[in-house]
Amino acid sequence: MEDKIVPNIVVGRLPLYLRTLQLMSLDGRKVTSSQELGEKLGISAAQIRKDLSQFGEFGKQGTGYNIDFLTDKLRHILQVNKVWDVAIVGIGDVGHALARYQGFTNRGFRIVLLFDNNPLKVGKQVDDFIIQDISSMVSQIQEANVQIAMLSVPVDQAQMVTNLLVDAGVKSILNYAPINITVTSGVRVQYIDPVLHLQRMTYYLE
Amino acid sequence: MEDKIVPNIVVGRLPLYLRTLQLMSLDGRKVTSSQELGEKLGISAAQIRKDLSQFGEFGKQGTGYNIDFLTDKLRHILQVNKVWDVAIVGIGDVGHALARYQGFTNRGFRIVLLFDNNPLKVGKQVDDFIIQDISSMVSQIQEANVQIAMLSVPVDQAQMVTNLLVDAGVKSILNYAPINITVTSGVRVQYIDPVLHLQRMTYYLE
Repeated sequence: MEDKIVPNIVVGRLPLYLRTLQLMSLDGRKVTSSQELGEKLGISAAQIRKDLSQFGEFGKQGTGYNIDFLTDKLRHILQVNKVWDVAIVGIGDVGHALARYQGFTNRGFRIVLLFDNNPLKVGKQVDDFIIQDISSMVSQIQEANVQIAMLSVPVDQAQMVTNLLVDAGVKSILNYAPINITVTSGVRVQYIDPVLHLQRMTYYLE
Repeated sequence: MEDKIVPNIVVGRLPLYLRTLQLMSLDGRKVTSSQELGEKLGISAAQIRKDLSQFGEFGKQGTGYNIDFLTDKLRHILQVNKVWDVAIVGIGDVGHALARYQGFTNRGFRIVLLFDNNPLKVGKQVDDFIIQDISSMVSQIQEANVQIAMLSVPVDQAQMVTNLLVDAGVKSILNYAPINITVTSGVRVQYIDPVLHLQRMTYYLE
């Protein structure tokens, strides 16, 4: 298959397909179809077929998709057939919940480092991890070659910590601070802010 | 202004504009432009002007937007000029972090009810709230006329609890369980799953 640029929006749907397939597999399912996936996800079957066709030929007309096969392919495409080390910066309630979150298992990620700047938290244990002082963050991230960080610091510290993370070589940041952050080219940011989602829904309430 | 259907994707960007304006206002700023907003958000100035023009005339050519005025308008459009009561179902680490999250203040939401099915948690206090037994959820939500719920229960309970929430009259669900849920027409669901965001980024890592 020749290299081509896959639209961002298509890449964004692949994790959703993968999650759905993995849940089906846990249920003991072996085969599915673009119709069934579409119904579960509220996406048209045609869209799903088109998205997947960007990466090759995964299903047969009339017999559907082999779930384990397509799961493997998507894990490979998304590069989550390996396990990525992740650092969490800011161990308040959100960071603490992320550090203990069970949902990363088997989905390509493991937490390896926790950082905070609060002396009352540094040295404390959260499950298997000791919270480290943020002053050692850059060197520890470099040493461990961590490329992914989750940011759960207060709004007024988010950009400063982001700059440190980028300096340390982090390439992907999942930002829980409710503010847009600026990064250099080559670094990607995704955002999680529950209020943005809630406000999208209140628009429609009566 | 006549009623018209505003595309979902436009509605989805309004909370981002509102958040940015509110942060600017906190910084003491009075005026901004579609250019400045665009740079902060990685959205084109033309797109922002087009999105806002769906709702009226908010800026003047050459003088930009009055931040407080546009903030008020967006709060009104998104219906967050009032405060919505929110229930949280599932008080594990994520639900606990949501119950204590400070980021809802001044953005249109307040937590009013917490539910769990674990007898060891029911009756316990989280900040100002007592965790209630899920068996009383439907009646309490109906009585309090709560229309918004955040769902942070295990995957295998998400659909069952969703059905109860819909029965109770909830119209908007923010689902933290990493599974797609099905709702009846007229009920909206938004999803938060950190792994989906992380997997969107690993695709691009080398």
